[in-house]
Amino acid sequence: MRTVQIGIIGGGTVGGGVYQAILRNGSLMASRLGIKLEVGRVVVRNLRKPRAVAIPKSLLTTDWKKVVADPSIDLVVELMGGTSTAREVVLAALKAGKPVITANKALLSEHGEELFAAAAKAGVNLYYEASVAGGIPIIKVLREGLIGNRITRLYGIVNGTCNYILSRMKREQADYAAVLADAQKMGYAETPPDLDVDGHDAAHKTGILASLAHGFWVQPKQVHTEGIRNLTQQDIQFAEKLGYTIKLLGIVKASPSGLRPPASGIQVSVYPALVPNTHVLASVNDVFNAILVRGDVVGDTLYYGRGAGQDATASAVLSDLADAALDLKCGSHHRVPSFVRHEHNGHVLPIDDVVSRYYLRLTVEDRPGVMAKVTSVLGKAKIGISSVIQPEGHQGATVPLILMIHDAPNRTMQKAIARIAKLSVVKSAPVMIRVESFE
Amino acid sequence: MRTVQIGIIGGGTVGGGVYQAILRNGSLMASRLGIKLEVGRVVVRNLRKPRAVAIPKSLLTTDWKKVVADPSIDLVVELMGGTSTAREVVLAALKAGKPVITANKALLSEHGEELFAAAAKAGVNLYYEASVAGGIPIIKVLREGLIGNRITRLYGIVNGTCNYILSRMKREQADYAAVLADAQKMGYAETPPDLDVDGHDAAHKTGILASLAHGFWVQPKQVHTEGIRNLTQQDIQFAEKLGYTIKLLGIVKASPSGLRPPASGIQVSVYPALVPNTHVLASVNDVFNAILVRGDVVGDTLYYGRGAGQDATASAVLSDLADAALDLKCGSHHRVPSFVRHEHNGHVLPIDDVVSRYYLRLTVEDRPGVMAKVTSVLGKAKIGISSVIQPEGHQGATVPLILMIHDAPNRTMQKAIARIAKLSVVKSAPVMIRVESFE
Repeated sequence: MRTVQIGIIGGGTVGGGVYQAILRNGSLMASRLGIKLEVGRVVVRNLRKPRAVAIPKSLLTTDWKKVVADPSIDLVVELMGGTSTAREVVLAALKAGKPVITANKALLSEHGEELFAAAAKAGVNLYYEASVAGGIPIIKVLREGLIGNRITRLYGIVNGTCNYILSRMKREQADYAAVLADAQKMGYAETPPDLDVDGHDAAHKTGILASLAHGFWVQPKQVHTEGIRNLTQQDIQFAEKLGYTIKLLGIVKASPSGLRPPASGIQVSVYPALVPNTHVLASVNDVFNAILVRGDVVGDTLYYGRGAGQDATASAVLSDLADAALDLKCGSHHRVPSFVRHEHNGHVLPIDDVVSRYYLRLTVEDRPGVMAKVTSVLGKAKIGISSVIQPEGHQGATVPLILMIHDAPNRTMQKAIARIAKLSVVKSAPVMIRVESFE
Repeated sequence: MRTVQIGIIGGGTVGGGVYQAILRNGSLMASRLGIKLEVGRVVVRNLRKPRAVAIPKSLLTTDWKKVVADPSIDLVVELMGGTSTAREVVLAALKAGKPVITANKALLSEHGEELFAAAAKAGVNLYYEASVAGGIPIIKVLREGLIGNRITRLYGIVNGTCNYILSRMKREQADYAAVLADAQKMGYAETPPDLDVDGHDAAHKTGILASLAHGFWVQPKQVHTEGIRNLTQQDIQFAEKLGYTIKLLGIVKASPSGLRPPASGIQVSVYPALVPNTHVLASVNDVFNAILVRGDVVGDTLYYGRGAGQDATASAVLSDLADAALDLKCGSHHRVPSFVRHEHNGHVLPIDDVVSRYYLRLTVEDRPGVMAKVTSVLGKAKIGISSVIQPEGHQGATVPLILMIHDAPNRTMQKAIARIAKLSVVKSAPVMIRVESFE
């Protein structure tokens, strides 16, 4: 039986998890694949650091360059994180003619095109199932399982930390700061938490999914990104009363005209949105991820599982290891290339042109005529109101006023909100959260 | 660009759907694959029959043998259904050295081993993504996406007709016969409906999934199968009161000792089961399918989408067409073989040895001492009762009595039920439905 020698770059949580999973299920995979996977080297920063997963000392080294150059290493798995040295590692390994597997969404999202070009030039492949939604094989689903579909809609809960925080805020009626602090203690959120809670991690992943769905590479800076930092318990509760749950969604939407060339732009955004409680995504809780993919042939499909963590990531890396090993055995690295650019006119729609529904919460004076002033601003902007709710049980000089707004472009809505904010009857900054109808 | 010529055998709903989908998205697929898919021939039974999807007359023929032998046809798609001529077609095409795609779960489930052997002998591949759960790429997920996992549990709602009937029975509080009749009128159920409602279709699919998960081929006759024909509105409502929804589940469960060689047997069954309303599978309604797969590395993952119908099936066939075309281009038909037998000691656990929980509904005399008689039978059989419910609002000579039963082997439970049925206080045949805890 052929043996494939693996060089793992990074011996932390994920690297240790992959090492452990190969130990555990390597012989099962060998019987399924006809190929034996063997870890030849694990590159770490510190040889003496105690590790949760015991890796034999004989495998450890601090010299990634030596591992990448070692002729006995058949393929390289980059699990070190970061975008600086990791980029060097991946480029060096590809240049050395070795297939590379990475779980690094930031690296891929920011430098994908450079890496894909390097892989093509070197005649090897770059695999990245673990970069999005951990154990859910969503990359394979998009590139292979749904290859016969135009992807008209994609909605993803792709950041476990944010989903964990939002799930607990709703369940426990607790404030953002308290839940975040607890999540940090329990290891579900990092310190500082910015990459997760400000939506950047979700933007990396959503950019990768958008790229695969639409055939042009979407840079993270092109993804309009809003995080969950400013969400209040008040809005979570008002949303619940209206029949919604607030989730941080990655959204990839083709406008009807965007589906046929010349493409007129794809929405690629990350923001908190009100999801109807009747929709399956509203029930995806805690650290779980889920991705709803709508294809023009297949209709709605949904994929659900753990999106991060040692084991979910290891499962995805093992899947890539199998693909890479089979491609080595069959000489088929070009069978499913790392990325196929197939939409040359594709572009991301500016957020200002994105049409959506809105939840608008105002803090207003409690006296007659207020509603007329607010609705008149919206009316002049030709923005339709689907309902106005004045929650009961609020007394005092100011009361909350909630408006549910019909489809309107972001530009129009932002201008109207700025005008509403200046009304003398409006006593604090308006809160706007988008509403997703999944139509 | 290389062109692959396709011979479609079967011009009905599914064949027409595949033809239409290739017309619609063929150029998109070409840009993704670098291969052009072209329908060379469509074999039909009747050249003059009006078709919902217009297929040019020049493509139609009634002679499948000619199409299979035609050197200009690169691959054959079997979409005729049935297991007799379809088997001949697949074997002849494989023998002619052509890759074959089939959506035929009955054929595959019953004759899989023969077909896989023929494919291996001919040096081509057999693809069957469309055979299970329509548009959900579950075959690819099991064989590739989760290849690094031992599959410890798999629960599938894999028959859209049954799920549609059960969803409507619950929602509308309607009886089985009435909903079935309406489903037949609307084209969601066939006449006669036996293949679906008696669980045979689900058994075919569950057998295929079990085979892929555990590495030995499970014949449909080995799958313990119960359908939904005898489910009553009364039980659906009692289940709802207890916090459950009744679903027809395909279940593949490895006992803890069944996971390591020597394998001690895998449960492979299809039966209606009480699913806790808090579990995501309870929310899968109407014609939708969903499959929960638990891997020893990845944990729980779930896949959801339309399980049948023209378009969902077409999407899966397109995915297989892409794989087959890429394998032709790369000469990699042996990369992911149609089936890898990797568990030589694997066997299916007899239903009598399967341990589960139970819902037991009795119709008993309304007088003191009845409960003692019933529980004494269970006590003697060492069967634990987790709760006893006497629903309110029932008056008369007999009343319903519901027992929720702890884990017990089927053999023990059946014997106890037979004894309970003979008690003079029990006035009609006991109703037993299994309860799934998803532990």
